[in-house]
Amino acid sequence: MTDVISIRILADRFEALDQTLLPHEERLLPLETMETVCEAISSLRVRGAPLLGIVGAAGLAVAAGELGTSDEALRAGAARIIATRPTAVDLSARTNEALAVALAMPVIHREKALWEFARRLHLERMDEDYQIARAGAALLPEGSRVLTHCNTGALATGGIGTALGVIRLAWEAGQLTRCFATETRPLLQGARLTAWELKRLGIPASLLPDTAAASLLASGHVTAVITGADRIAANGDTANKVGTYGLAAVAARHGVPFYIAAPTSTVDLACPGGHSIPIEFREGGEVGGFAGQRWSPEGMDAYNPAFDVTPAELITGIVTERGVATVPFDESLRQITARRVTA
Amino acid sequence: MTDVISIRILADRFEALDQTLLPHEERLLPLETMETVCEAISSLRVRGAPLLGIVGAAGLAVAAGELGTSDEALRAGAARIIATRPTAVDLSARTNEALAVALAMPVIHREKALWEFARRLHLERMDEDYQIARAGAALLPEGSRVLTHCNTGALATGGIGTALGVIRLAWEAGQLTRCFATETRPLLQGARLTAWELKRLGIPASLLPDTAAASLLASGHVTAVITGADRIAANGDTANKVGTYGLAAVAARHGVPFYIAAPTSTVDLACPGGHSIPIEFREGGEVGGFAGQRWSPEGMDAYNPAFDVTPAELITGIVTERGVATVPFDESLRQITARRVTA
Repeated sequence: MTDVISIRILADRFEALDQTLLPHEERLLPLETMETVCEAISSLRVRGAPLLGIVGAAGLAVAAGELGTSDEALRAGAARIIATRPTAVDLSARTNEALAVALAMPVIHREKALWEFARRLHLERMDEDYQIARAGAALLPEGSRVLTHCNTGALATGGIGTALGVIRLAWEAGQLTRCFATETRPLLQGARLTAWELKRLGIPASLLPDTAAASLLASGHVTAVITGADRIAANGDTANKVGTYGLAAVAARHGVPFYIAAPTSTVDLACPGGHSIPIEFREGGEVGGFAGQRWSPEGMDAYNPAFDVTPAELITGIVTERGVATVPFDESLRQITARRVTA
Repeated sequence: MTDVISIRILADRFEALDQTLLPHEERLLPLETMETVCEAISSLRVRGAPLLGIVGAAGLAVAAGELGTSDEALRAGAARIIATRPTAVDLSARTNEALAVALAMPVIHREKALWEFARRLHLERMDEDYQIARAGAALLPEGSRVLTHCNTGALATGGIGTALGVIRLAWEAGQLTRCFATETRPLLQGARLTAWELKRLGIPASLLPDTAAASLLASGHVTAVITGADRIAANGDTANKVGTYGLAAVAARHGVPFYIAAPTSTVDLACPGGHSIPIEFREGGEVGGFAGQRWSPEGMDAYNPAFDVTPAELITGIVTERGVATVPFDESLRQITARRVTA
């Protein structure tokens, strides 16, 4: 059993796997200066919302060593880190949390406190992932063959992942016989990252074009679908990587259970339903090409939403670190998010 | 209004667009020797089932000029052409038809008869496409916004195409306001070929990742889906490029009509239903990469069916050159295929 390490936080420095080199090369990148930290974020060497949160916090500890621990220096450091990817919510939220923790301490203790905060954040994330995985694996009977989408593994979270964490735990428990992973156009996180994680973990796996998912579901080869979530509305409608909705719609046609695996922090009770979730559209150049290669004519218009919304009626269960929400989701999600975490 | 010419048959020679150079370069390839003809087929410079049929027939005329018109020479020429892509049904069927026509003639007339046969085949194809397009365009009201999959245009058939021919005629008639084309992984015929044809024809069009089709259908931006077919069973179940079934399933959920456009030669009354259609699986290397670029780990297993089957219950109508088949398809398809073609 090999492991997948996407980030390591040591006493006063940290390193992260350079994800742009995957799947062809595994290289841990020392992130010892503000410049290397910021470049790693903006060049997507580190990505995945929860992982970026940890990188932001650890990055502020690096800033403290480099710029000093005055209020001014730390504020400037946090601003610089957040500016590398201004739309990444976890990056700004965790960096700002780390900043607040540091500012509440005497100047002399701040650097150490920041490393401590980043380490704790990483541990919390690992624990949360593990709780999700345990709850999810319990839903997968022996002989499960699971289809997943995008990348929701260690590379995304810094822990064992959400949906991919469930798959991993089910495999380790002997309940899973095969994982199917979509390529996940346009950014190919499935082909590049999930395929690499599955291979690294020794899990029997097949990669498929996104176009083949519907016939795979029709074939009876898949016993469950499980994906992550970017945002879960109060009624259970779930925004996730574009392509998720199509998988859920076809899974429902064939009676294949469809699960979401995500931390309760993803549940937004203030958002009543999918219609209230704004969908980000990304630049059209991602469509019709990849990594500098272009297959489509120059100047072709593109329809390129980053996410789609899966209506709650297609979802069998929402697996969180505090338990599994089921129909009726509004009630179930309210109960679960209110639940105290017990050890 | 520009046109798309994929093949031109002249008095005693022919040329075809080199599709491997698209969408970046348009080059008509003179196909004047057996070597260039066979290389063009095996290297996929010409592709698309009906177009390959025409190329096979014209190729045999080239063989007659090069190898002579004895029975032996023509048989050897036909065998060599067919061997370039042994699984291409239209290529072998039309080449063998051309061979039979030639063998029935005096040796001295054979070369001319072969050119005549190839020209007539091309004209028949153009007429058939046009009849399909006319029947299909009649189904699309003004303001139609149509989603299509794979490439079913001039590049595939040598005429104006099947599903893409419908779209083109609807556009020319002022009924279509936008065409949406999927990339069509793994071979990207949508991104490379359909996008190029649409641009060339001046049709307002957007390319989308296959993953975005479901949310596009949910958005209400699409008023109809239309695709081609590789094989239509007696009950209306339709095998077509992988990804078609997923589009049909989601279109049905949103009440968007889903049409198949294909010649009656695609209807196989001897095949009772989709379960009797064998699905070809292609080599896994097509998944997780493209054109020499590889995104997935080496040796990753892949699930790579070439086709999928759309059950008849999801199909609104099957548009043929002899009219539109509708529910109940078994009856409707039997009637249409039995119908005499009237001028």
